[in-house]
Amino acid sequence: MGRVTARRRVIRIRDGAVNARPDTLVTEEPLEIRLNGKPLAITMRTPGDDFALAAGFLVSEGVLGGADELANIVYCAGATEDGSNTYNVVDVRLAPGVPVPDITLERNVYTTSSCGLCGKASLDAVRTTTRWDIADALPVRIEPELLAALPDRLRASQRVFDRTGGLHAAALFTADGELLDVREDVGRHNAVDKLVGRALQQGRLPLSDAILLVSGRASFELAQKAVMAGIPALAAVSAPSSLAVDLAAETGLTLVGFLRGSSMNVYAGEHRIALHAEAGRG
Amino acid sequence: MGRVTARRRVIRIRDGAVNARPDTLVTEEPLEIRLNGKPLAITMRTPGDDFALAAGFLVSEGVLGGADELANIVYCAGATEDGSNTYNVVDVRLAPGVPVPDITLERNVYTTSSCGLCGKASLDAVRTTTRWDIADALPVRIEPELLAALPDRLRASQRVFDRTGGLHAAALFTADGELLDVREDVGRHNAVDKLVGRALQQGRLPLSDAILLVSGRASFELAQKAVMAGIPALAAVSAPSSLAVDLAAETGLTLVGFLRGSSMNVYAGEHRIALHAEAGRG
Repeated sequence: MGRVTARRRVIRIRDGAVNARPDTLVTEEPLEIRLNGKPLAITMRTPGDDFALAAGFLVSEGVLGGADELANIVYCAGATEDGSNTYNVVDVRLAPGVPVPDITLERNVYTTSSCGLCGKASLDAVRTTTRWDIADALPVRIEPELLAALPDRLRASQRVFDRTGGLHAAALFTADGELLDVREDVGRHNAVDKLVGRALQQGRLPLSDAILLVSGRASFELAQKAVMAGIPALAAVSAPSSLAVDLAAETGLTLVGFLRGSSMNVYAGEHRIALHAEAGRG
Repeated sequence: MGRVTARRRVIRIRDGAVNARPDTLVTEEPLEIRLNGKPLAITMRTPGDDFALAAGFLVSEGVLGGADELANIVYCAGATEDGSNTYNVVDVRLAPGVPVPDITLERNVYTTSSCGLCGKASLDAVRTTTRWDIADALPVRIEPELLAALPDRLRASQRVFDRTGGLHAAALFTADGELLDVREDVGRHNAVDKLVGRALQQGRLPLSDAILLVSGRASFELAQKAVMAGIPALAAVSAPSSLAVDLAAETGLTLVGFLRGSSMNVYAGEHRIALHAEAGRG
């Protein structure tokens, strides 16, 4: 896809020196996701893997759980006045017999008709729509050294970041630390949706043997996406939020944050991490 | 607000040493925004300044333009089954005579009933709802040295970041570099909405003399929020996206990215930056 980056003129100022030159930017464009022809959501994303993004978004929202529930995904041609295809509108058709959910979707969380939203209510909403119990998934004990090696493997496999500095990355690894897939996007949630959508298309859901690594912070939204895809371990290079930790604790998700060098913080699901007694666990 | 941070138990691993201790995390909770009693949007935010967040969100969406259009904002009590107040639902009442827009709002962008979404169409949607022409605002020439000093001023005024590492920050400065206001939130868009909402509440819109600084990247969404608040200059510590640059170029917004040390990139609106000829502009 030639649309992942775009060239724009930029005036660079470096210690008082000024010069104009072309610069490479990450492309950001809206993607409208339709479900059986009906507009459902718009996300600002980096073009590429749009079908996977749409499929993964619908996994996150509890609409899709397996490849057999998906009939097909197409770009909507003729969505503009002049009938051209912008490649910014996709339509997801569910397989015959799969119920079209009657839900109002916000981009990241469910809008429930009952009000009373709070952290707890939000956790409940996720838990009721999760198809897979991740609490007993991945019953191995992962060595901290293995986790510590993952960010470098992610960075080594990122293709665009070095050129634009504007992309988030997300990657799936096996419990042995083998890289399964990596996606980049201007939105971190999109990068995760693209990973999950590709896994769905390949019949690999639930991802009950996988570790998800994200390049930045671990929000509730990302923890939710992991749980909805059946992923039992989420590692983030930066800080988690309170609600991400609470969701992880309630669902059995292993949540690791501040994964930097040989250091990390384990916020939940520590039974999957090999914590060596001789190291003096206080 | 004691809810800005939360304490959770964490297991820290440092070079093989393991210990458990309490850690301070940034709080993330959903906020449902209602307009005249009708649910409109949910955003995951850090509690605090919720009324400003709701007001600023409605400025970004083109619903509010001045304090006189706002009747009041209240927390919805009794929004839970037990009738308690979660402080996670706010209702914005428009002043009498102010039309309630018949729009379906996604969290960040308009859902247009016409399809054909693409970069261009999205830019058009913003431009038609902008109340203020920022092209001629702030006709001064800002010295790069002044811009270069802003990130340190922002960091010095951040209160929570050092404790959690999980907050984004946004700040408003005068054209002389004086700090007007700073907000932190788990979501960068929320931090900007809180700034803009407070300005609306104080009758300071449009912010036609202000510079907006954000701690991370400059997305289309953030550029859009600047334009909708009448802010003529946006500076970001990290990379802009292609669509942010395109929106800035079309609206006359000055967009500066990679503002680090004495270096920066000017992507649009360079007429507001003092570029000294002797420095060899190429």
